Amino acid sequence: MTATPKTLAWMGDRLRLLDQRRLPAETATVDCHTPDEAAEAIRNMTVRGAPAIGVTAAFALALAALRSGASDPSAMLKALRVAGETLRLSRPTAVNLAWAVDRVLEAAGNPRLDSVKAIRDAVIREAETMAFEDVEINRRIGRNGFPLVPDGARILHHCNTGALAAVEYGTALGIVRTAVERGKRVHVFVDETRPRLQGARLTAWELGRLGIPYTLITDGAAAFAMKTFGIDLCVVGCDRVASNGDTANKIGTYHLALAAQAHGVPFYVACPVSTIDLNCASGSGIRIEERDADEITRFNGMAVAPADAAVWNPAFDITPADAITAFVTENGIVRPPFRTGLAEAVRLSAVRPRFRL
Amino acid sequence: MTATPKTLAWMGDRLRLLDQRRLPAETATVDCHTPDEAAEAIRNMTVRGAPAIGVTAAFALALAALRSGASDPSAMLKALRVAGETLRLSRPTAVNLAWAVDRVLEAAGNPRLDSVKAIRDAVIREAETMAFEDVEINRRIGRNGFPLVPDGARILHHCNTGALAAVEYGTALGIVRTAVERGKRVHVFVDETRPRLQGARLTAWELGRLGIPYTLITDGAAAFAMKTFGIDLCVVGCDRVASNGDTANKIGTYHLALAAQAHGVPFYVACPVSTIDLNCASGSGIRIEERDADEITRFNGMAVAPADAAVWNPAFDITPADAITAFVTENGIVRPPFRTGLAEAVRLSAVRPRFRL
Repeated sequence: MTATPKTLAWMGDRLRLLDQRRLPAETATVDCHTPDEAAEAIRNMTVRGAPAIGVTAAFALALAALRSGASDPSAMLKALRVAGETLRLSRPTAVNLAWAVDRVLEAAGNPRLDSVKAIRDAVIREAETMAFEDVEINRRIGRNGFPLVPDGARILHHCNTGALAAVEYGTALGIVRTAVERGKRVHVFVDETRPRLQGARLTAWELGRLGIPYTLITDGAAAFAMKTFGIDLCVVGCDRVASNGDTANKIGTYHLALAAQAHGVPFYVACPVSTIDLNCASGSGIRIEERDADEITRFNGMAVAPADAAVWNPAFDITPADAITAFVTENGIVRPPFRTGLAEAVRLSAVRPRFRL
Repeated sequence: MTATPKTLAWMGDRLRLLDQRRLPAETATVDCHTPDEAAEAIRNMTVRGAPAIGVTAAFALALAALRSGASDPSAMLKALRVAGETLRLSRPTAVNLAWAVDRVLEAAGNPRLDSVKAIRDAVIREAETMAFEDVEINRRIGRNGFPLVPDGARILHHCNTGALAAVEYGTALGIVRTAVERGKRVHVFVDETRPRLQGARLTAWELGRLGIPYTLITDGAAAFAMKTFGIDLCVVGCDRVASNGDTANKIGTYHLALAAQAHGVPFYVACPVSTIDLNCASGSGIRIEERDADEITRFNGMAVAPADAAVWNPAFDITPADAITAFVTENGIVRPPFRTGLAEAVRLSAVRPRFRL
């Protein structure tokens, strides 16, 4: 297996991002020197995937701390809060962004940090810790989830949830990888995932590099693939999970979940605890980002629809809890009733000691 | 309303096709001088849509009759049968191709035709009759189907079933057009329809020219559109309908039908009787065409997936009869149980006098 180029790397004074918009044709990187550059990289999807954009936001605050000319702690904290607001708004649906910003600001606000330098060091350390933890969380999701994958499984996957969606390894694809590492044979059916084609461009590329057999399909072919080949399970990621289990994930997930339900195919959501939003009672409370029409009407500079076409381009949809079989978190598998299980998963992360570098 | 350029036009010695691969950017035409050129135009989707490819095949046989150097009736009939076999194989799923070839060969085989010229004239006349009838069939489907459309309806549509899929007017979109012509307000949600984007490229373009309001969405967003906006009905075309009502149509139709079922949305199939195959007992007897991988892996010359990606690219899927609310044929609406109603629709077409030019 060939290692996948790193999604993001902290270079001491800048954040290096793999430019995912150019995959699979090129493996180019983009360096962010300021928090605004990092926010723009999140917005334009140079980096994407809920875990990856959370950690990117944390390093964006490290950049804010490095670039700030603040001469006292309170000015520094103010600069960090301002940068945090920009980052929070860069993509509204994934809760990991807000979670990452809150966590770094909390670390920066520790009253024992009595100098600009102390705050700056704490911010960078917190971001580095979060990157480290993200890898461990992915590995744990893989370990918790792989028993759900039968030997010889045909797995249907939507969007990209691999190493490229996280710091390393991946969430839903992490479960697939762990299953393969434990000797199970699998075949992955890869939804191309319109409009941004994360399945075709990123997941197919990652699986190919890992030597995991896959078949690329259009999103509309998923139900017919279930009927034709027999699919053993679907596994997807998530961008925000409400306390009742309603789940925001890449547009097309809900459509896929309905097809799975109609065919009796288990539908699993790989879910880092940071993606659970206990403040959100149900899916109706989740704001769905709508992106530009030209993601649908144009392709590689060519018009594929009338220039004046009216378009609805939600980046995410909501899969209701009753279409989900189970969540796989780093703290274990959560089955219905989800409300108690998701709250318990969050509680466990709060009481467990964090990893430290 | 601006008239849509004609899908196909018989020019006396050649068949002129609108090149649908170049829409909406350009309205270019391609002239076919030989049956092989017409078969290739069907294969490469210069012309597509079950009714349109049926009539194209009929005119392709007219080209075969014109180009044949046969000096006696039996040599002419042999040349027509050879051309018919090529046409039949150009796209295997839509039954209209085989139906059109059979019908023209039957007309050519009339024992009263005692010269090469008489056969040639009969073939051309039969093709022209079929083109004429196709328009009338579409109009009747529209008239039979429009009462299914409530005023203010939100309609979800897959692929293209408009004037471009037929000689004129359209089948499923013909129902929408008739509803609008009868004063109903509608809004059409247009599935873009991967991989060939007939919804984005053709349906959005046709609706725009007709002044019918629409919103373009990705195929994966259809279920979320049902949940978000409330969809009153889905209406699609078909490529082959088995005697039990199982229906082959553009890939993604089955996925859409499952979403409609989950939301209690009526699912209608606009169905010219020529698309009903009473010789086919169920969907499992329908051969599904699989097309090239590069329809999915490449776009406008650019790779959007690894070059060696394994791909499954069925052009059609099978929607089981129990996911279909009704068929709208030129002979009336067929509701369950479909077997008797579809057979009756076929019988009516057989006993009714054909239109004659």
